[in-house]
Parts: sequence; C-alpha cells; structure tokens
Amino acid sequence: MATPDIIFYTSKGCPYAHRVELAFQEAGADVTRYQIDLQNKPEWYAQRVNPAGKVPALVYGSSKSDPEHPSPESVKLAESLILLEFVADLYPDSGLLPKDPVQRARVRLFIDTVTNKLFEPFVAFFYRGEAPDKFVEAVAETQKLLSPSGFAVGDRFTIADAALAPFVGRWELHLRHDVGKYAEGTGPRVHQELFQSERFARLQKFFANISSRQSYKTSFDSEYLLSSARARIGR
Amino acid sequence: MATPDIIFYTSKGCPYAHRVELAFQEAGADVTRYQIDLQNKPEWYAQRVNPAGKVPALVYGSSKSDPEHPSPESVKLAESLILLEFVADLYPDSGLLPKDPVQRARVRLFIDTVTNKLFEPFVAFFYRGEAPDKFVEAVAETQKLLSPSGFAVGDRFTIADAALAPFVGRWELHLRHDVGKYAEGTGPRVHQELFQSERFARLQKFFANISSRQSYKTSFDSEYLLSSARARIGR
Repeated sequence: MATPDIIFYTSKGCPYAHRVELAFQEAGADVTRYQIDLQNKPEWYAQRVNPAGKVPALVYGSSKSDPEHPSPESVKLAESLILLEFVADLYPDSGLLPKDPVQRARVRLFIDTVTNKLFEPFVAFFYRGEAPDKFVEAVAETQKLLSPSGFAVGDRFTIADAALAPFVGRWELHLRHDVGKYAEGTGPRVHQELFQSERFARLQKFFANISSRQSYKTSFDSEYLLSSARARIGR
Repeated sequence: MATPDIIFYTSKGCPYAHRVELAFQEAGADVTRYQIDLQNKPEWYAQRVNPAGKVPALVYGSSKSDPEHPSPESVKLAESLILLEFVADLYPDSGLLPKDPVQRARVRLFIDTVTNKLFEPFVAFFYRGEAPDKFVEAVAETQKLLSPSGFAVGDRFTIADAALAPFVGRWELHLRHDVGKYAEGTGPRVHQELFQSERFARLQKFFANISSRQSYKTSFDSEYLLSSARARIGR
C-alpha cells in the first residue's frame, strides 16, 4: 500500500501520543512528525488542527503541506484510541488488529478495561497521592487479561500493546525514581511489587517484551520523561 | 457469509442492548435471542455468560446449545460498543462500518462524543433531576456532528446510528410523557425544544429517518418502555 500523506502532531512526553507513535512504527508508516510544546502551545494548533488543543492529532491527505498550515480540505483526526484504530485500518496487513472478529473484540475489550478500570486508580495514586492499594489491584486485574505470550492479546503486537505500553513504561520509570504525589519512599516499594515480585510475573514479561522492541526503544526517552515528570510533580 | 452461531442476551428495556439489536437487524443476522430480566437476574447468567451480570452479551460458537448452558469453550463477549464493532466485523458488507479508514474514524469519533460528552448531562437531567440546560447544550453539540443525510455519519446506517438511536428514542418518549426526575412539566417543554423547534431540525431529521426503519420499529416498544420507566422513576 502506498504510504498515505500524514502529519502526526505529537509531544515527546505525552503517553497518549506515544501510543500512536508505537502504532506508526510497528506498521512501518512513513509520517511527518511535528512536536507540539504542550506547555506553550502555538495559537494556530487549535485553530487549524485540533480544536481541543491536545495531542495526538493527525492531518491526513494534506499533500505535503507545511504542518503549520495544513490544507483546509485535509482530514483532521484526534483521540488516541480512535487514531490507533485508524492506523490499523490504514495498514490492515500490519497485524495491529488481527483479522479474526473474535480476536479484534478481545483487543478492544483489553483496551476498554485499561481505559475504564485502570486509569482512575492510576491517576489517584500518582497524581493525587492516594494509597497504592487500588492501583495495584487494578494492575492485577489488567494482568489477568495479558496473554502469556508477552503481548497484551494473542501472540503479536496489536493496538492493545500500543494502548498500554506507554503507561507501564512510565510507571516503571517513575516508581523506580520515586516520582509521584505519593508519600516519599512509596515508589520503590510499589516498584518492587509490580516489577520484581513473582505475583506480577506476567506484567514483567509483557514489559520486558514490549520495551525490547525497536518501536519502544526509539520512542521512550527516560531522561527527558524523568526530568519533565519531576518538574511537573515537584519531586 | 454463513450465519455465525450467536446467542444474544438482551433485555427489552435496555438501551445498550437495543444498540446491538439494531446492528444485528440492519446486518440481517440470524441470532438466538435470550431475554434477561434485569430486575431478577438468573444466577447462571453471571457465572456462565457475563461476570458483570449486564446486558448486552453474546455467546459465539456454541453450536446451538441451550442459552442457559452455553458450551464452556464458546466465546463470551460483552460491552455494547465492542459488540457493535464485532457485528460490523462479522458482517463487513453490511455497511455498519464504512470501508474507508477516514469514514470509519468519523463513525468512531461520533460514538466517542456521544459516550464522553452527552451521557453525563443526560443522566444528570433525567435521573438526578438537574436543570435541562447542560443536556440541551450537549444535544446541540452532538447535533453538529450529525450528517445532513438523516444518518449520524455519511449517507447510510452505521454503528454510529445504532449507538445513538436507542437514547434519542427514549428521550423523545420520556419527555413527551413528562417521565423523569426533573420538575413536573419540564419534559414537554424540553420536548418542544428538541423535537419540534427549528433549532434542532437536524436531530429531528435523524430521529424521523432512524425511527421509520424496520429495525427500529420492531425493537422499540413504546408502551413497555413507558411503563417500565414510570415504575423506575416514579412518575
């Protein structure tokens, strides 16, 4: 399939944009990337690309125009989960979504669980400093859905991996360095449980597998993420 | 395509199950329906079909087994939006999802807006009795996304129509009969605005179009819905 003409508006620190970056790389897509500084968004971005002002967003079919002036008739798309489906649709042979309807449903159920069961406890723990218990339990529930293969669903990389991996990577990094609104010292303790204990062996296998991939290694900049998280969280 | 072997667990009053019913009918699918009484759920349902105990749910590939005893190796699926995608995947020529990736993304963006922008104000107004303003504004925002064709997206019935129609139908019915937790007399006033005023002409075209379809007419039982809503809401 010919490479479609895509401008991908992203931001290095954003886990939602990271999802889409992983999908593009896994599909071998050739896209034009444009970094948006989320702390200092250019005015034209909401006007010409994404009214919500958020990343990730795509401009599709803009005939290689300037990313700051995408053609008005080009298609503008946003929302990370919708973009993951879009990349899978553009590259049907990438395996980002399996061909089998039941397997596709399993990928979507996995993403639905991550979205609706895992994110609220994650935010409560990392950003509101609540006790880790609910977060750890939600990770345990998510882990039950992980395939024994080291992938989220089935035995190859799908959009379910792309949806979860940016968050697991940040958890691992932030916990290890005790970066979060939680009480000091909580990070390494939870890190020990999630990333070293037998109870979370399947999560660890998933993380080892995904984080060894080229797509992840080139898109996860630990140093940058750590310093921007420290600046944001204040420890 | 051969008709797959599907047991569809549904409940006449449930708008989420109604979504999937519309999709099956529009696809011309031949499924075995099983009514779950949500006020008095059979014990086996959570054990053998959907641990969350909710409808809609599907059992797929159970070789015509008894719905109360689906074969253990059959596939169990739930969550209305995931089931809509599943039906579209099973019937790729149904048009439930367009073939074009951009149009597919538009269908999903539409459903995302309904889910994330419309439902909370809807629940606040109908079930918590808050003032109608935010609900009316959220409907106005949703209306902006409606196609001028009378369908949600594009010019034929898709899962975006299936996702929204069960709710619009219930709003129209409940408002007309003043059934809701809102102050008495509010229903007909909001009905006048949404279903009769020029401002909401596009919503009205959508509702007239969808509610005239065979799939809708055979699955929307006004009398039953009204009496069960009255019993639940208390007016």
